Amino acid sequence: MVRVAFQGELGAYSELATYEFFSSNVEVVPKETFADVFNAASSGEADHGVIPIENSLTGSIHENYDLLLNHDLVITGEIKLRIVHNLIVNSGGKLSDIKRIYSHPQAISQCKDFLSALNNVELISVYDTAGAARKVKENGSLEEAAIASAQASLDYRLEIIKSGIESNHMNFTRFQVLSQELNEEVENSKTSIVFSTKNIPGGLFKSLSVFALRDIDLYKIESRPLPGSPWEYIFYLDFDGDIRQEVTKKAIAHLKEIAKFFKFLGSYPKGYEVTGQIQERRDL
Amino acid sequence: MVRVAFQGELGAYSELATYEFFSSNVEVVPKETFADVFNAASSGEADHGVIPIENSLTGSIHENYDLLLNHDLVITGEIKLRIVHNLIVNSGGKLSDIKRIYSHPQAISQCKDFLSALNNVELISVYDTAGAARKVKENGSLEEAAIASAQASLDYRLEIIKSGIESNHMNFTRFQVLSQELNEEVENSKTSIVFSTKNIPGGLFKSLSVFALRDIDLYKIESRPLPGSPWEYIFYLDFDGDIRQEVTKKAIAHLKEIAKFFKFLGSYPKGYEVTGQIQERRDL
Repeated sequence: MVRVAFQGELGAYSELATYEFFSSNVEVVPKETFADVFNAASSGEADHGVIPIENSLTGSIHENYDLLLNHDLVITGEIKLRIVHNLIVNSGGKLSDIKRIYSHPQAISQCKDFLSALNNVELISVYDTAGAARKVKENGSLEEAAIASAQASLDYRLEIIKSGIESNHMNFTRFQVLSQELNEEVENSKTSIVFSTKNIPGGLFKSLSVFALRDIDLYKIESRPLPGSPWEYIFYLDFDGDIRQEVTKKAIAHLKEIAKFFKFLGSYPKGYEVTGQIQERRDL
Repeated sequence: MVRVAFQGELGAYSELATYEFFSSNVEVVPKETFADVFNAASSGEADHGVIPIENSLTGSIHENYDLLLNHDLVITGEIKLRIVHNLIVNSGGKLSDIKRIYSHPQAISQCKDFLSALNNVELISVYDTAGAARKVKENGSLEEAAIASAQASLDYRLEIIKSGIESNHMNFTRFQVLSQELNEEVENSKTSIVFSTKNIPGGLFKSLSVFALRDIDLYKIESRPLPGSPWEYIFYLDFDGDIRQEVTKKAIAHLKEIAKFFKFLGSYPKGYEVTGQIQERRDL
């Protein structure tokens, strides 16, 4: 059994990603904040952490980019989880009776087409989607609903009255697995780094050239402000290959000639898009 | 008099940026959301909008990047406003009596060093900093404080008991002025665009080459997800020069050979870092 920390309560989408990656051989360690997840994986309280890094509709989770910079963990895996939002009620609840809907603000925003067709319903933001399900269970009212995962519905013995209420079904969240050490090198991997460039003309262009000139594909670039240096930036880059391959080593050596700052964040097998698997009811 | 819409209440940092740019020749039009600001400037209800686009500590305001894409407004100016947070109380209030502090979550987070030294104080997130000041005034309690601008303190006849409580004083927010039409070309300008690349190897590298090969400096790159196409991105770019200059026209014509999508967002004089000027008391 490996212990894996994630942010949120049982039934959170991060927990679904955790089971998807580690299958059922896992003891989950729910944490309140993303920083808590990083701390648990760093201290050894957990063997790994699982964090969302990007949603295909709403973009990057910048807090986790910043935390990656400030912790000495490496990324050892990724999961691209299809996010299916469900409207969940107490047993016997009907859509026409609902007066209040609880969920995480991002889930509410992702279901805005469905929600805007409802009349006289108050939308209430809470800490996470699974917590919204717990609240509906605790309150026990047929006037209340939550937007959450099917797992949360199962665990709290609630009923799904409508599934897939997200406005855009191409809704994926990409999660990363954090560990203290790299795994073995595998085929079909990607590498994540963060760097800043020297203050030279075309600094970013020259930095990207070390990959382009070696035909290394880039998957993602993300810029973040350099604190204390207004209008300067650090760049997070995901690209094809493993840090232990010769061409990757050469590209990084070349990048270090140009970069003012460089940090390796991990090499890991590329994740595929998955829908997540529901676990047995836990009766929370 | 020009009418300028901004998000927030009177005394918000966006209002300080508005007066800084337009001086006092302005009728301010406070709006509840960023989308409302875009709509007011698009419909003619206001002549211009002023929006925050980036903070030097916390990064880009992505909602406004997304709104720029979906509206036909152009950027005609920028303001880099130094953000000075103040702890504000009702007349006679003392630091040791404070039990509750209201502010915008970002302002709370930017003052975390100061706040973590206080004991038994509840931090309460509200909609905007000026609204926090109004709330403290309305409640009239000496146990409550707000984190807000000096302007909000003046307008609500409150007292600043500590100024500059932000953890990092290199705290600037860059605002953009939105208009229906470009101004005259000026010296010392920058241009903003948004584009996506064709799905070709080194697409981003090739896109940046059109600027690097012409010695055009880049100021900022920001990537956002392309909705409905997971793991594809659009790129927002700020670079040196005006759209009406020959070299800029050639660079953009070259970029269009590579880009799948292209939109011009504006050319405008580069903003300088300013501290903002307090207006006369309005007695709100």
